[in-house]
This record gives sequence, structure tokens and C-alpha cells, in this order.
Amino acid sequence: MNPEEEKRATPCSSPVFVHNPHLDVMKDDVLYHFGLGTATHNLPAMFGDVKFVCVGGSPWRMKSFTEYIAAEIRMEDPESEYPNICAGTDRYAMYKHGMGIPSIAIMLHELIKLLHHAHCEDVTIVRIGTSGGIGLEPGTVVVTKKSMDATFLPKFEQVILGKTVERNTDLDQCLAEELLQCSKELNQFETVIGNTMCTLDFYEGQARLDGAFCSYTEKDKQDYLKKASEAGICNIEMESSVFAAMCKLSGLRAAVVCVTLLDRLKGDQMNSSHEVLQSYQLRPQILVGNYIKKLLKAKAGRSCNSATV
Amino acid sequence: MNPEEEKRATPCSSPVFVHNPHLDVMKDDVLYHFGLGTATHNLPAMFGDVKFVCVGGSPWRMKSFTEYIAAEIRMEDPESEYPNICAGTDRYAMYKHGMGIPSIAIMLHELIKLLHHAHCEDVTIVRIGTSGGIGLEPGTVVVTKKSMDATFLPKFEQVILGKTVERNTDLDQCLAEELLQCSKELNQFETVIGNTMCTLDFYEGQARLDGAFCSYTEKDKQDYLKKASEAGICNIEMESSVFAAMCKLSGLRAAVVCVTLLDRLKGDQMNSSHEVLQSYQLRPQILVGNYIKKLLKAKAGRSCNSATV
Repeated sequence: MNPEEEKRATPCSSPVFVHNPHLDVMKDDVLYHFGLGTATHNLPAMFGDVKFVCVGGSPWRMKSFTEYIAAEIRMEDPESEYPNICAGTDRYAMYKHGMGIPSIAIMLHELIKLLHHAHCEDVTIVRIGTSGGIGLEPGTVVVTKKSMDATFLPKFEQVILGKTVERNTDLDQCLAEELLQCSKELNQFETVIGNTMCTLDFYEGQARLDGAFCSYTEKDKQDYLKKASEAGICNIEMESSVFAAMCKLSGLRAAVVCVTLLDRLKGDQMNSSHEVLQSYQLRPQILVGNYIKKLLKAKAGRSCNSATV
Repeated sequence: MNPEEEKRATPCSSPVFVHNPHLDVMKDDVLYHFGLGTATHNLPAMFGDVKFVCVGGSPWRMKSFTEYIAAEIRMEDPESEYPNICAGTDRYAMYKHGMGIPSIAIMLHELIKLLHHAHCEDVTIVRIGTSGGIGLEPGTVVVTKKSMDATFLPKFEQVILGKTVERNTDLDQCLAEELLQCSKELNQFETVIGNTMCTLDFYEGQARLDGAFCSYTEKDKQDYLKKASEAGICNIEMESSVFAAMCKLSGLRAAVVCVTLLDRLKGDQMNSSHEVLQSYQLRPQILVGNYIKKLLKAKAGRSCNSATV
């Protein structure tokens, strides 16, 4: 192979894109919700080696994941004061946010800027969350193929200067397949690949019958969920569409991994015990934790091989 | 006056409405995000005397408000383990939520059901929050007249079974005027009544130039904010529309009181010091705290008078 061919054959490093010319002329870019800034922190030194980012909404879930993964990949300080900034080989970072699209969008704007300012490359990002399933046994893990809106279309509508802009919500299909494969090897719980519906509301927006307001019947609900199922939708949650859209725009390799806490065809309320619900919430963590370990092992293997050549 | 006239002249007790026939036939209604349920808790005994509810997004803000108001109205146990369930005369309750419409909507669905199940009457609810101002000195408190969407219309769009339903976002004008009057008497900071724009996104949705993505110019931003200002919009935040819509549907007397942390005509980043931003965030608390004290005093006065009659 000549050098040009070799260059094309070798996977190139892929940076994290922002699409904002204004950032170039800012003296300081304050990442307000992270308490970081380009003028006050050396972001490339602090975060430049990040390869893996996990995001999730619940503080409990993210704390338990930090402890879990630190133990799994034998990090030095699992009880560190900064559990979301864990140093190690092939650094990963973890961020929690609140519930819903606006909440994860704020976090992602600042996270994407952080990864960009830190000159990170080849970053994989996974949302680990919870959802309501459609026709699945509670506890099933769903890896999202496409994130769909409440009319079952694979798009996210972003309002900019009062005008609606449509964004694509495709996720990385290879990454989804790798996660499914990883779950098969683990063989601890059921995992499927399917479409995920993303809504702005937990009650009326998801056809629940138990909100403060409900103007439709049980039959209307069942008809709506059946149509969703026919569109390939396996579960419903509240963050995947803006997550998919923003990660795609910034060139991040992204996946959404959500456990189903109940089967919405059979009910609306979370009736399982606290312990059962918590054990379900651990499943996306176990899956993603194992995937990271597998990646690290493969990389260590490659380093080993090249050292012996 | 005959009894019929007297009845009309006397203000009647006003209950909290839900609009959901399904609730009547549920054996247990689990308020999942509150950890309460109708079968497991005596909600009328626990919450039946609630007259005043404050909601806000930031845990820090709600904790500081709990301590502030407990001291102000001399509650017995300001450091109680359950700071959001404070017993006292004319009980008030406090709830925190995350950022954005989906987050406050989940909380409000369950809060409205809680107040309904507890048979509360004559409840006043206030959102205390932060916002970006348009042409106002940072630190100005805005009491919302109407909550408007990103096209400057006073409505909230709720998607139900995939179809968009429009809801009215009017707030209680008397309550807004009373809060403004209270601020005048306090004379500690500037307070105005004006419209509030409610968006789903903090960066592109509010015409900020410092997000990870930005496809418009400084001039486009200024033009958009100028048009907003011409529609009577004084500040921008992310929860008021669904708050106004849901409170109106359930017959709650509602107000939105947000301090402005910056003037968006002059910038996008929060450049004030942490201390200054925190002191601004106290202002809606001080205003609402004083309003509650004033109500309690007026009520005590009335009880006193009737006792002496």
C-alpha cells in the first residue's frame, strides 16, 4: 500500500463538531451548568482523553453507575469527590441531568462544547435511562434504532427564532448492534433493538389514563399504542430525540439504552416494588459497563500485539 | 340580604379540579415522583390544610427558601427532615423539579392530584424561578402577566394521542397585582409585571449565540428579541406556559415570579459572580415570603375581629 492508500484504510480520528462561528471569537466560554470555562480551566488537559460519555437523568442512577463501573474497571478512587470526572485509561465521563428534552438539551450543548474545547476525538456517548415498554416484559432493555416523535416520525423539531426546524434522529446502527451482541454474551436479561418514542409529557403525552387530566378512553389509549407498535416502537421515554439529533450534528457515536419499567399495554402506574425497579435500572448500566470493559480489553490486546511485532 | 344573595356575596371555597374520570375507579393512585399514594397515605390528613404551594427548579433555591420562610413565619422545625412538608397554620408546601416543561409538568400532574385527593380548597400556587431579561436591569423581578410561546402567542401546545391541543396560559391578574403591590411596600428591588416567553431550549430556542450550534447572526438575535419586546415580553424562561395552562385547568390561583439574571440584549452568558447570582435568586423568595406573611397577618386580624364581635 502506498501512504495515501494506507491513510484511507486506517480509520481517521474523528473530532467533536460544534456549528457555531461565534464561539471562535469568545474570550471565555462559560459552561454555566457545569461550572467550567475556557478561560478558567485547561479543558484539553482535564478532558482531552475522554473517549466514552454516559448521560442519565437520575442522580441515584448516575451515582450507582459511577460506583459500579469504577469497581468493574478497577479505577483507583471509586468514592472520589468528583465522581463524574474519573481519570483512567480511555477516560470516560458521566453527566446527570433532569427529566425531559429541555433538561438534556442544556446539558448536551455544554457537553458538546466541552468535548470540542478539549479537542476530544472518537468519542462514544450513551444515554442510559428508563422507559415504558409496549408489549415487552418489564425489565427488558431496549437499544434504540430510531427515535420517533408522538406522530411516529423519526424527527426532532427545534424552534429557532420562532421558526420550526426539523432534525434527523438516526442513531449509530453499528454501536446498537455491538451493544445487542454484548448483551447476548452477558446473557443476564432480555435486550432488543427497536424504535423509541420520545414525548414532552409523561401523562397525556404518553396516553396515560392516570394524569390530573385525561380526555380519552382506555380504547383510545390502546389504539394509539397499537399504532405506535406497528411503527416499530418498543418503548417510550422523554429524551432520546434531542439526544440523537444533537449527537448526530456533532459527529458523536451515540446510543440510547433504556430499560422498560412496565408494559404500557397492561397499565400506567409503576406498581413493581422499589427494589425491583432499582434492579431494572441497573441493567442498562451493566450492559454499558460490560461494553466499555470489552472495548478496553480489545484495545489492550491490540497494544500487546503491536508491542510484540 | 336574603340567603341566596349572601351566598353569592360571600366568596365560596374553591376546590382543586382534576379532569379525569379514570381516577374515580382506581383503588390506589400512586404519585410515583412524590413517593405517595392514596392507598398508602392519608392525604387529606397530611395535606388537606395546604393553602399555599411554591414550586421551583433548583434544589438549592428550594432549600434556601424553606429555611428562609420557616424563619420568617416562625415555624417550629426549619431543619426538619421533610422540608417540603411543613406543618403550620395555613399550611404551605414546597416542591422542586428539574429544568423545563416536561419536568414541571410531571410534578404538576402529581401535585394537582395530591391537592385533589387531599380535598384542599382555595389554594394559591407560585412558581419562583430565574430567567433572562429583555431590556431590564439584571436582578429585576418579573411577575408574569401572560406566558407566551416562541412565536409570541399566549398558548401552550400539548400533544395528546399524537394530536396537538392548544391550552390557554392566562395567569391570575389579581394575584399578580397583589404581588407587585407587596414588592412596592418592601421597596428592596425593582419588580415589574410583564409577559414571559417560555421556550423548550435554552440556547437556540432563546436566540443565544453561545450554544454548540448557532446558524444565525447577532442581528437576527437582536431583531427577534426586539419583536419579543414589542409583544410585551419582559423575560424568557422554560416552565411558565405549562405551569399557567395546568393551573388554570385545575382552578388554582397561580402566579409566576422570576428574577432576571442578565439582560439578553447585552449578552448571553451569565457573567455575574456566583454571589450576585445567588442574591438575585433570593428576590422572588423574599417577595413571595412577604406576601405569605401579609396574608397570614390579614387572616389573623380577621380571626381577631370576629372573636371580639
